[in-house]
Amino acid sequence: MSSSNATPGGDEKTEAGTAKPPMREALIAAAFQLFLERGYEQTTVDDIVALAGVGRRSFFRYFPSKEDVVFPDHERCLTDMTAFLAASDDEHEPVRRVCDAARLVLRMYAENPAFSVQRYQLTKKVPGLRAYELSVVWRYERALAEYLRERFAGRRDGTLQADVIAAAVVAAHNNALRSWLRSDGQGDSDAAVDHALAYVQSAFGVAPTPGPAVDEQPDDVVVVVSRRGAPLWRVVQEIETTLGRD
Amino acid sequence: MSSSNATPGGDEKTEAGTAKPPMREALIAAAFQLFLERGYEQTTVDDIVALAGVGRRSFFRYFPSKEDVVFPDHERCLTDMTAFLAASDDEHEPVRRVCDAARLVLRMYAENPAFSVQRYQLTKKVPGLRAYELSVVWRYERALAEYLRERFAGRRDGTLQADVIAAAVVAAHNNALRSWLRSDGQGDSDAAVDHALAYVQSAFGVAPTPGPAVDEQPDDVVVVVSRRGAPLWRVVQEIETTLGRD
Repeated sequence: MSSSNATPGGDEKTEAGTAKPPMREALIAAAFQLFLERGYEQTTVDDIVALAGVGRRSFFRYFPSKEDVVFPDHERCLTDMTAFLAASDDEHEPVRRVCDAARLVLRMYAENPAFSVQRYQLTKKVPGLRAYELSVVWRYERALAEYLRERFAGRRDGTLQADVIAAAVVAAHNNALRSWLRSDGQGDSDAAVDHALAYVQSAFGVAPTPGPAVDEQPDDVVVVVSRRGAPLWRVVQEIETTLGRD
Repeated sequence: MSSSNATPGGDEKTEAGTAKPPMREALIAAAFQLFLERGYEQTTVDDIVALAGVGRRSFFRYFPSKEDVVFPDHERCLTDMTAFLAASDDEHEPVRRVCDAARLVLRMYAENPAFSVQRYQLTKKVPGLRAYELSVVWRYERALAEYLRERFAGRRDGTLQADVIAAAVVAAHNNALRSWLRSDGQGDSDAAVDHALAYVQSAFGVAPTPGPAVDEQPDDVVVVVSRRGAPLWRVVQEIETTLGRD
């Protein structure tokens, strides 16, 4: 089996630099070939191992079930995400941090566009895979929410805010991911997810991730909220106080 | 079987006023009795129908699978929610409307606190039920998102905003619901969900549902956003223009 962009699992090296076992890659490739030819439900694990030329036990060494071969990289990605969040410190703005964590998932899909698009087509057609995907998405969402709950531990409504923001981040990510998948992986996935996550960041009071130039020249913004009925002098006084504060 | 507050399914009448078939109620009660005594996995449909004193075919007339007997009212609630959203008009502020739609789900749980708390305990322990619940939650979220997508059809980023807001509403609802379930259904579920949904409404620029007095006296708010470096006269000019606009 030659390694091409369409090869499920992509490069032989993962981001962590560990070589992926060729047998695992062969099983994924065989599974997808059969799923696309015969349909997911009509393909058995026996069919997959016969095509890959390995024994049944080899399959189950790598994949607990037939569903898992469809989403072979989510466990690694969940591990990477958890490690990324665990490596945070108090300097990291929490909402921005979970947005950056969500980008890891997009990167996994974007590593291998042809495989991701194939899987998207398959998942839409097979209810069992849809259910499996929901359980994976839920695990990502819980990882983000757990991190935010810790960061918001001192806040009133900390768990509420953590849960809502985690769900919003996942929904924005998935909206961008699906747009990109529907474009057959042709569009700019990074730009799509940046745009989607900027919406969440603005809703929850965080400026979108700034570029380096802006980092060097902090350019604060003053927001004044006033009832329409308030006299103008009162509004001006408020602005003056705010501008002169530091 | 006497009808008590702890009877699964609650009152004999649904909100729509149609009588629930007693056999359906008997099957739910028998199923829960066995799930709690023996465990969910150890209970078969045959066990349930034997205890309820009916035939196997009666079970499958009401419930497609064993999972469905655990969540007997979600289909009705999804139908109610879809009807509620379909009955909206342009006067309804869209974010507030989906929050009101989410309240229908909470009401279903609150109709029968003892049953809801029992089910919560069961669902936490059985992975298959957790997966089933995720698929139900996903259907609620899609119903809210579809409504918002229609309402936001003219907006740039309308589908992104619809998906994010729907996810945030569902997460806020579920946060309040779980708090209430963990209190063994003792707390004020309406107050908890109102509080949680108010957070989402404020994040997405909607004032929380006002009381009638406020409705009669619209009290608009002016928001001015300015860079800290902007000259004061420029800010004042902007406010004057905004205040004088209508």
